[in-house]
Amino acid sequence: MPEASANIGVVGLAVMGSNLARNLASREGNTVAVLNRSRAKTDELVAAHPEAQFVPAFSYEEFAASLQKPRTAIIMVKAGGPTDAVIDELVKVFEPGDIIVDGGNAYFPDTIRREKAVRSTGINYVGAGISGGEEGALLGPSIMPGGSDESWVTLGPILRSIAAVAEGEPCVTHIGHNGAGHFVKMVHNGIEYADMQLIAEAYDLIRRGTGKTPAQIADIFAEWNRGELESYLIEITAEVLRQVDATTSLPLVDVILDQAGAKGTGAWTVQTALALGTPVSGIAEATFARSLSSHPEQRAVAASLPGPAEAFQVPEDQVDAFIEDVRLALYASKIVAYSQGFDEIRAGAAEYDWTIDLGAVSKIWRGGCIIRAQFLNRIADAYAESPELPVLMTAPYFAEALARGQAAWRRVVVAAAQAGIPAPAFSSSLSYYDGLRADRLPAALVQGQRDFFGAHTYKRVDKEGTFHTLWSGDRSEVEAEDTH
Amino acid sequence: MPEASANIGVVGLAVMGSNLARNLASREGNTVAVLNRSRAKTDELVAAHPEAQFVPAFSYEEFAASLQKPRTAIIMVKAGGPTDAVIDELVKVFEPGDIIVDGGNAYFPDTIRREKAVRSTGINYVGAGISGGEEGALLGPSIMPGGSDESWVTLGPILRSIAAVAEGEPCVTHIGHNGAGHFVKMVHNGIEYADMQLIAEAYDLIRRGTGKTPAQIADIFAEWNRGELESYLIEITAEVLRQVDATTSLPLVDVILDQAGAKGTGAWTVQTALALGTPVSGIAEATFARSLSSHPEQRAVAASLPGPAEAFQVPEDQVDAFIEDVRLALYASKIVAYSQGFDEIRAGAAEYDWTIDLGAVSKIWRGGCIIRAQFLNRIADAYAESPELPVLMTAPYFAEALARGQAAWRRVVVAAAQAGIPAPAFSSSLSYYDGLRADRLPAALVQGQRDFFGAHTYKRVDKEGTFHTLWSGDRSEVEAEDTH
Repeated sequence: MPEASANIGVVGLAVMGSNLARNLASREGNTVAVLNRSRAKTDELVAAHPEAQFVPAFSYEEFAASLQKPRTAIIMVKAGGPTDAVIDELVKVFEPGDIIVDGGNAYFPDTIRREKAVRSTGINYVGAGISGGEEGALLGPSIMPGGSDESWVTLGPILRSIAAVAEGEPCVTHIGHNGAGHFVKMVHNGIEYADMQLIAEAYDLIRRGTGKTPAQIADIFAEWNRGELESYLIEITAEVLRQVDATTSLPLVDVILDQAGAKGTGAWTVQTALALGTPVSGIAEATFARSLSSHPEQRAVAASLPGPAEAFQVPEDQVDAFIEDVRLALYASKIVAYSQGFDEIRAGAAEYDWTIDLGAVSKIWRGGCIIRAQFLNRIADAYAESPELPVLMTAPYFAEALARGQAAWRRVVVAAAQAGIPAPAFSSSLSYYDGLRADRLPAALVQGQRDFFGAHTYKRVDKEGTFHTLWSGDRSEVEAEDTH
Repeated sequence: MPEASANIGVVGLAVMGSNLARNLASREGNTVAVLNRSRAKTDELVAAHPEAQFVPAFSYEEFAASLQKPRTAIIMVKAGGPTDAVIDELVKVFEPGDIIVDGGNAYFPDTIRREKAVRSTGINYVGAGISGGEEGALLGPSIMPGGSDESWVTLGPILRSIAAVAEGEPCVTHIGHNGAGHFVKMVHNGIEYADMQLIAEAYDLIRRGTGKTPAQIADIFAEWNRGELESYLIEITAEVLRQVDATTSLPLVDVILDQAGAKGTGAWTVQTALALGTPVSGIAEATFARSLSSHPEQRAVAASLPGPAEAFQVPEDQVDAFIEDVRLALYASKIVAYSQGFDEIRAGAAEYDWTIDLGAVSKIWRGGCIIRAQFLNRIADAYAESPELPVLMTAPYFAEALARGQAAWRRVVVAAAQAGIPAPAFSSSLSYYDGLRADRLPAALVQGQRDFFGAHTYKRVDKEGTFHTLWSGDRSEVEAEDTH
């Protein structure tokens, strides 16, 4: 058996796992034990990176023996069955006080279940969302760990050593207990879906409205990236739009099949929001936009449905103004998307009894992850000023931006509807904005309908209690038990 | 022990159960055994309805003994634990070939699970969605039974005897195996959410745009109910809007608190659609509109967010045209909502291996249930003509209606955006329409972004295969394994 020389171990040495192991090994003070199901991958990694001075293990016993106490291991294998299998093995060789970290993309209820099971053995279990893909894993990801306070004492310094750094601060914080980390990572991805869809709608409107080429629109995005929209996604959008396909000499974006894939985290975010009663309509529309695009058999038959009589063409002298309108609409809709996402985190924290510092969450997203942006500083400011803020978009900075942008936002939604260009995320965000600020909503009529057909009862604006109108009787009102 | 004199039994005698039992007893050829957890309810029902000639049972043994073989019992208790408890008892006293029917609002995965468990005993298990509320249960509901073909032989005639009748046909059909019935009932409710929200948006736009009173708008809905919008929901909307509150003499709709409740089936519908990859954006927006309305703490802080500078006022000479636009927009959006709902049923049937006759589903919704409408005949026609129709809204009748209405629909969405009136379901439906008929979607850009940051790969329009651009390398394109 080897001596206990490693302070951290990684199980699973596919690209993400080996990159994370290399990242760990490159930081002062870390010695990294590595274990993989097949020996070949371990040998390969150790041989390819002598500078990392990995401590290879070829069994769980060896792996455990090579780790200093409290033993700390990060699992980087596929979510689901493979993760459960590794946990089972680690539990056999670890001891109370040791720490098992799942760095995969687990669905947070699974993390809650696993944490509960592992905790009963005295071992700490941490579900940690890791964002930033392969490059992030190697150079510095944004890390969202859940789990116990005890585990954080050991794990904190290690994760801080490898995380991305934004404005001098490592992009990692202890999110909350058990599944909180994977929950927040899930919402991060949902926001990412919305952000990407909004950018796609902006591009589509500009292209179809002005006839500009993808390369010209790349310049617009590059320009936007110097202002309040500055973000990784805007930056890479410019890169993608500028790319020319070598085979056809066409813009690459015109050669890519327009059917968007998804790996499920957007759907999880919306499913969870539905269970929490939190309207994340922008994320939902973005998720559905992807599934709509991926039904070619439906699109083929729908192609003959008619659009507006007139072709969409922004007059030459209004092109710049239109582009600025789109920019403002994008920014306003983005504020709504983030506001809805943070609303879901707040609701999740209340439901699952997590104490989540929303400002800290926004700060660790400033580096390493896909939605990294200056913008997140404004969110941190908002929660610093008002930790109990019921809706993010009402914070002074965002309220001002929305007030400044709303006229343009309306013009863009109007243009899309008139032009027959789908802008589901732009228009859904505007509807949400107008819904939340409405003095009265026709939800009152919905309550009346529900009381009519199902005796679901209603409340009144002018007095306490729950009421029912005897619709099939004399239509008088009676006080009712609040059972629906 | 009693002699086996009943051909059908009901367990659970709360309002829904006792009404269903009375309905059964009132039909030629049925003798109904009744059982309830507490004896008092049974005695009460039997005493109150001597004409029903109920066969009361006071234990599961007595209940089973009073039923002819194959014993057939409908459970009418709360979904969840209470249903499981009754099933456990019935399984003890029933024999292979007997039939247990769950007539509650079960979530279809629970029905799949229960069917599997009960089937292993040789007993048939049928999850049956029953729509129409208390009145429907008594006078004739729309019934959506799943379960085995064997069970349908016995159950079919019994359910046909009590179902609502529409145009001479009973509103019941064997939907498909195991959970198919509860699945279809779930989607029915999801469509109901969308239909109600669309009506609410139509009302809100007319009221805020024209200043008409609820009573005047009631007249408009009553008028609409004589045309292609004819439906139970339009009819009761007129009734609700006409209702005057006795205490305040105000329209009741102005006295009802504008926070819409929900019992979860809308959320289930959307959650399931997300798992199936079926865009049901109209149902999602309707569900979220209810949750948005039910967050008074958020609405209070958002009330100060600004709307459009100009007040919304449809010019006097354009009021009639505006109302007609809203009618057309409502009809077009309704077509989208039903199209999305039937799309979900089709996708669910494919996923769960059910053979569902979509035309038959639309026919059994013509009576007894909340979304009953003439309109459903058009859906039946569409599937009769083209059973494999990939999207309902592309059927000739609906395509024509959409073509006729789309200009008005766009004007209404434009008016809402300009006026600052939330119309999430109207605008989402229009975005879906424009998305599905789009020649190219900016989903291609989304694929490019995904390939850039996560090497998720893309497909090309001009050749087979899966590709990846080496974004951090020399930006050449390589063929890739299709793993994402």
